[in-house]
Amino acid sequence: MPNSIRILEVGPRDGLQNEAGEVPVEAKVALVEALAAAGLPEIEVGAFVNPKLVPQMAESAEVFRRMRRREGVVYSALVPNRRGAEAAIEAGADLLSVFASASESFSRRNTNASIAESLARFEPVFEIAAGASRPVRAYVSCAFGCPDEGEVDPTRVASLARELVDAGASEIDVSDTIGVAVPRDVDRVLDAVGAEIDPSRIALHFHDTRGTAIANVMTAIDRGVTRFDSSCGGLGGCPFAPGASGNLATEDLLYVCARSGIETGASLADVAAASSAIGEVLGRRLPSKALAAVRSGVGNDQCRSEDGAARR
Amino acid sequence: MPNSIRILEVGPRDGLQNEAGEVPVEAKVALVEALAAAGLPEIEVGAFVNPKLVPQMAESAEVFRRMRRREGVVYSALVPNRRGAEAAIEAGADLLSVFASASESFSRRNTNASIAESLARFEPVFEIAAGASRPVRAYVSCAFGCPDEGEVDPTRVASLARELVDAGASEIDVSDTIGVAVPRDVDRVLDAVGAEIDPSRIALHFHDTRGTAIANVMTAIDRGVTRFDSSCGGLGGCPFAPGASGNLATEDLLYVCARSGIETGASLADVAAASSAIGEVLGRRLPSKALAAVRSGVGNDQCRSEDGAARR
Repeated sequence: MPNSIRILEVGPRDGLQNEAGEVPVEAKVALVEALAAAGLPEIEVGAFVNPKLVPQMAESAEVFRRMRRREGVVYSALVPNRRGAEAAIEAGADLLSVFASASESFSRRNTNASIAESLARFEPVFEIAAGASRPVRAYVSCAFGCPDEGEVDPTRVASLARELVDAGASEIDVSDTIGVAVPRDVDRVLDAVGAEIDPSRIALHFHDTRGTAIANVMTAIDRGVTRFDSSCGGLGGCPFAPGASGNLATEDLLYVCARSGIETGASLADVAAASSAIGEVLGRRLPSKALAAVRSGVGNDQCRSEDGAARR
Repeated sequence: MPNSIRILEVGPRDGLQNEAGEVPVEAKVALVEALAAAGLPEIEVGAFVNPKLVPQMAESAEVFRRMRRREGVVYSALVPNRRGAEAAIEAGADLLSVFASASESFSRRNTNASIAESLARFEPVFEIAAGASRPVRAYVSCAFGCPDEGEVDPTRVASLARELVDAGASEIDVSDTIGVAVPRDVDRVLDAVGAEIDPSRIALHFHDTRGTAIANVMTAIDRGVTRFDSSCGGLGGCPFAPGASGNLATEDLLYVCARSGIETGASLADVAAASSAIGEVLGRRLPSKALAAVRSGVGNDQCRSEDGAARR
C-alpha cells in the first residue's frame, strides 16, 4: 500500500457547477484560497465553457485573476475545446482537463458530440497545452456505468484511455459518474485500463451516491493508485439522481487516509472550515459525513491515529 | 470471499432508540413487519429496559404482541439484566442481546456499571436464556475507540469477547460505537478477537459517522466475516456526535452486496420502502445514501449487477 496519495480538489468547479445555489465570485475566490491553505496540492478552479450553457462557471477567469496563488499548488481548469484552452491558459491555469465519455449515448447527451467527435475537439487542446507546457488530464466518464446504457464494458474504458494518452493526455481520470461502482468493479476496470496504459497515469473519480466511494478508494490504494478526486464537503449533487449525493467528500477521504497512516498533506479541520463557509453561502449543510462529525464537536479526538497523522 | 452474508436489522431498536421523534406502536409494528417481508432474516424488535431511562422502548412487549411473525425470521431483543431477560422471553423474543463495553469509562457512563459488574448482571441472562433454549448475542461496544478514552487496545476487546463466550454467548458483535474504524482497524481487531474465540462467532456493528462503514464491511467480508448489523435508512443518530450519522444503513449494505454478487436474501427496494414509511412518521429524510438514490428514481437500473442479484 502506498504511504501517500495526491488529492485533486474539485469542489470549486465540479462541485459548484452542480449546485443549484448562486455563488458570488468573492466566495469562490475565498474557497479556492482556503482549500490551498488547507494543504491540498491541486484545485480545479473553474471551467472555460459556454457561459450560456454553464452560467455557474461564467466567472472562472475572474476567479483566476483575483485569487492569491500559493506556491506549489496546481490550479487547473476544465476546457471543452480550443477556445476554452486558450482562455484557460490566458487566465493562468497550470493544467487543463478534458472530458470524454466511455458511453456513446452519454457523450452525445452531455457534450453534444460522439466520442470520436469529442476526441477531435481535444486535438487543438493538446496542441495548445503542449505549446504552453501545460499538462492535460483527460477524464473518462461513465467508466463504471452509464445512466443511459447501464453497464459499460471495461475494455471500452481502456481503449479510450489509450487513445487519450496517445493524443497527449498525461493522466487519465477514470470516473464513476453515477456512483454505482463497488470494489469488484474497481478491480475489473483497473485490470483493463492498466493493461492499456501505464498504471501510474491512472487517477480515479468516485461519486458517493450509494455509499461505496471510500471502499472503492481503499481498494484502489491497495492496488497502488495514488491520485483521487474529491470535493470539499461533498459539494455537487448527482445530476442524474436528484436529491442523491454526488462527489466523494474531501473530508471523508482525508479522515480514512489519516487514520490509515496514508499521508495527504492536507488538514481535515481546515478543509472542514472551508466547506462550512461555502455551505453558509449556499444555505445548506453539505453531505460529507466526516464534516458533520467534525462540526458536531464531539469525538474529534478519535480522528487521531496512533501516529498522529490526522493532526498536522 | 463468502458468497452470502446474514444481516441483523437493528433499525426498530438501536435505530429508533436514538431518534428524537416519538413513534407510535403501530408504526413500529408496521416497520418490523415490512422489514421481515423485505427478506431480512433477523430483526432487533425492541429492548426490555427501564422505561424511565429509555422511554422509546417502553412498548417493546406490545410490539412483540401485535406483530405478525414471519416463519424463519429471528426476532431479537436487547436485555440488560435478569428482569429484562424474563420479560423478553415472556414477550416471545427468539434471541437476547446483552451489551458490554471494552472501555471501562464508557461502561460506567452507558450502563452505570463497571465491565466486571456488567458481566455479573449478564450471568442470570445467560441462565434464563439457556433454560428457554434462546441464544444470547453479546455486544462489545467501543471496540474500535471510545468517546471518553480514545484508542482501545484490541487485546482488551479480545479478552472481553472470550469472557462473554465462556459465560455463554453464542455470538460476539464487535461494535464501532463512535464510527471511527477504518479497514486497518478492522484487520487489527479481527486479528486479536479471532485469536481468542472461534472466528465464526464474530459479528460486526459499524457506524457510518465518517463514511467508512462500507469499506470496513468489505474488508471484513474479505476475511470471511458473514454477520453484520445494519439499520434501515441509517436510522439512529450518533449520540456522541450530535448531527452526525449513526448506524450503517441497511440499504447501503444491500447495494454493495448485490453488486458484489454477495447474497443477502433481502430486497433493497422493499427495505427502502419500509425506511421511507418510518421516515415519514419521524418527519425527516433518513441518511442512507442508497435510499436517496432509490428515492430519486433515476439510475435505479444501475443497482442491477450482471447476475441480477439486486432484484428479487
